[in-house]
Amino acid sequence: MTGNAAVDAEVTSRERVLRAAAYLFRTKGFDATSMREIAQLAGLGKSSLYHHVPSKQQMLGELVDHGMDQLTSALQRVATADLPTTERLRLAVRTHVLTYIEHRDSVACFIQEGRALTGDQRGAFFAHRDRYEGWFRELVADGIAKGEFRPTDVKLAVFAILGMCHWVVRWYRPDGGFPPEKIADDFAEFAVRGLVTGQEGG
Amino acid sequence: MTGNAAVDAEVTSRERVLRAAAYLFRTKGFDATSMREIAQLAGLGKSSLYHHVPSKQQMLGELVDHGMDQLTSALQRVATADLPTTERLRLAVRTHVLTYIEHRDSVACFIQEGRALTGDQRGAFFAHRDRYEGWFRELVADGIAKGEFRPTDVKLAVFAILGMCHWVVRWYRPDGGFPPEKIADDFAEFAVRGLVTGQEGG
Repeated sequence: MTGNAAVDAEVTSRERVLRAAAYLFRTKGFDATSMREIAQLAGLGKSSLYHHVPSKQQMLGELVDHGMDQLTSALQRVATADLPTTERLRLAVRTHVLTYIEHRDSVACFIQEGRALTGDQRGAFFAHRDRYEGWFRELVADGIAKGEFRPTDVKLAVFAILGMCHWVVRWYRPDGGFPPEKIADDFAEFAVRGLVTGQEGG
Repeated sequence: MTGNAAVDAEVTSRERVLRAAAYLFRTKGFDATSMREIAQLAGLGKSSLYHHVPSKQQMLGELVDHGMDQLTSALQRVATADLPTTERLRLAVRTHVLTYIEHRDSVACFIQEGRALTGDQRGAFFAHRDRYEGWFRELVADGIAKGEFRPTDVKLAVFAILGMCHWVVRWYRPDGGFPPEKIADDFAEFAVRGLVTGQEGG
């Protein structure tokens, strides 16, 4: 909000368009969603939709960026925390799951629909993704180096952990009976147990 | 192969069409794939494609069925194995990952594109999926009841395990440097460690 009523109304419509697009991309998929449906859900005419955002691609690019920003800024705080690696892993998985659930429409765009991006947006998406995976790999490698985690293939361990977390988009429902905190705790415990050395696993 | 040359040629073209469709659905997505592209990849004219399969929906339905059959028949053998639950879990995850990689195009159709199904095919898809998840839940519940696994929420544990396994479709590449057996072993170990009670976790 800028305090300028005309500008604020503009921001609000645009935000509404992006939220509508994110919801439809997550639930129906990018290719199956039409500009008309986005306009309808946002409560706008199709022509004023184009005034806000020129194309579906543009919307997807913005949403993917937004989803990625949510995840990386939350994880940045974990990365610099002064804690044993095991606790940083626990915190990273918890943070991932909670951020994911809170922003699930835009994060789902990043995870499910990233392949529909083209050109520069596609390059930015892969750069984001590589940074994110790289960050998790450093965490796991650090735990192995310190003897907190058992020796195991770092890339496969990270694929396992991220797969578990990313899959949440496919089954989570706000009315599904699982509070986000419970999912975050259980998944963090699962990841930590999967990696800690035997003596610390009990 | 029936030994009847005309029938065999027919079977082969149809099979080629379905394989082409599976590959495109997995890599581009169902909605983004056109009948023309499927015909091209299968080396057929568009009109003879329609002779083999009447619609994209029909192909997706068959592929999803096929992917599901591959997974369930492989798991059926594990379900009836006379082994401790921990070993059945290990075997189930290994089987899931190996079947998945071997038949990844059609399994990916089931996992990624199932939401694009309509009508009866949609019902069949969800029934399949529920049976599959149900089977894993029984396995985990059984392990908890016997004291082999720590007490934990069964549904969440199964979502974690299946998420890890399903995500393979998104990152596995035949030239990616990981033999399927290695992935299967590492993921099975991760799942088992995530669930076994402390004393057995070392």
